[in-house]
Amino acid sequence: MIEITSLQNSVVKEVVKLHQKKYREDFIIVEGEKAVTEAFDAGLNIKYMFSSNKTMLENFEAKSKASKKTCAEIYLANEKVMEKISTTESAPNMLAVVQKPNHALSDFKKFQKIVLLDGIKDAGNLGTIIRTAAAFGVDGIILFNECTDEFSPKTIRSAAGNIFKIPVVHCQGEQLKEFKKSHKMVATVVNSKNFIQNFVAKGPVIIMFGSEANGLCNELLSLMDEPYTIPMKDGVESLNLAISAGIVLYEIFKH
Amino acid sequence: MIEITSLQNSVVKEVVKLHQKKYREDFIIVEGEKAVTEAFDAGLNIKYMFSSNKTMLENFEAKSKASKKTCAEIYLANEKVMEKISTTESAPNMLAVVQKPNHALSDFKKFQKIVLLDGIKDAGNLGTIIRTAAAFGVDGIILFNECTDEFSPKTIRSAAGNIFKIPVVHCQGEQLKEFKKSHKMVATVVNSKNFIQNFVAKGPVIIMFGSEANGLCNELLSLMDEPYTIPMKDGVESLNLAISAGIVLYEIFKH
Repeated sequence: MIEITSLQNSVVKEVVKLHQKKYREDFIIVEGEKAVTEAFDAGLNIKYMFSSNKTMLENFEAKSKASKKTCAEIYLANEKVMEKISTTESAPNMLAVVQKPNHALSDFKKFQKIVLLDGIKDAGNLGTIIRTAAAFGVDGIILFNECTDEFSPKTIRSAAGNIFKIPVVHCQGEQLKEFKKSHKMVATVVNSKNFIQNFVAKGPVIIMFGSEANGLCNELLSLMDEPYTIPMKDGVESLNLAISAGIVLYEIFKH
Repeated sequence: MIEITSLQNSVVKEVVKLHQKKYREDFIIVEGEKAVTEAFDAGLNIKYMFSSNKTMLENFEAKSKASKKTCAEIYLANEKVMEKISTTESAPNMLAVVQKPNHALSDFKKFQKIVLLDGIKDAGNLGTIIRTAAAFGVDGIILFNECTDEFSPKTIRSAAGNIFKIPVVHCQGEQLKEFKKSHKMVATVVNSKNFIQNFVAKGPVIIMFGSEANGLCNELLSLMDEPYTIPMKDGVESLNLAISAGIVLYEIFKH
């Protein structure tokens, strides 16, 4: 355990860089004991571990040694350092620099339940949908077109630890077409008369959700096998994207 | 129409004060053309109207005169003023100071579908739940115990204009007991074996949701007639509060 008190320390500077997406190629920041524990339990390597709580660090050190994994560099940091390296207003009790998870689209072929998000822009929405997908046993998430970073601190926070429980991959048009043979592709659209409660679960499925501003792109609309609508009161325009996704995933996977 | 360019103008200062809850006793800030239109359509008096877009202001002025309502003071503001008075990073195209809606709990007695939120703390969650409740035809929302301000700019933004479509009131313990005679009181709890899809809609109902951190308080648990659970995958702790509310309201009111 190394004590760290200077904001000029090179490790501190290295962590602060990870606040920006362009530096998160191999490593990401994970904040708070709960999320750090989820990352550790998912078998991800932890490069650095910071806390101002010595007992917490000792417990982590013991757990880390018992697991036979390469032990992280462990730093006892003061409050000033914790505030500097964290991305939240009040510093978390723990902060780790963690190896970025790496999943392959080819693994998704055998998945029964896939969620696809098209051009999702809001980090809170993405994290919340990941959390909801985990709750309903979704096997994996595909990000299509340009989406917000699934490993931004805000997304990780909104996912409440579940980002490490469910594989997330990026995918473009041609690769997706291959799934058309094996998976039924469904989506919610505004004007269908086919209500989502009529969905009959049978075989592998990809459930697609469009972006907050533009809905599903034409490419995905042309791949869609079945459109559904969430029944709503007349005159109300729409639901928040994460709420729509929550309702659809619940309805499809509640059985 | 009055041109306004100085940040020192007393009207500018009056609006900036409304960024703080303690000054929002009689008036609130509403940002963006869509939300302002909803406030106007709901019949609320508009005290001040600001925009840097002259055409937008002329259209509002014409509409306002046609409606026979006391016409607001209309200000053509430059970008600097719009940025100063708004609560968002990029200034909205329109900002209004609007009379605060005022509803009475006694009106709720005749409502069929009521949502109660207990000690909700997150402005985004509250706004999203209001938006969802409007989509599923909920008649009114009761805020119980200390909740985040339903008229904070962030809540209004998350409600996407629906804050003016649905009455919201505050209520304490004794007042709520009177509803016990007329309304069935249901809630979702963690460990019930009674899944929410078993809910049978019959007669007036109050659907209660606990706070993000603590769930439902004991007082409300003792008033509850029926507990329900959202079926989830084993090992997943919970859903985001707004997502739970979305699923429950969909399931109960989809018919």
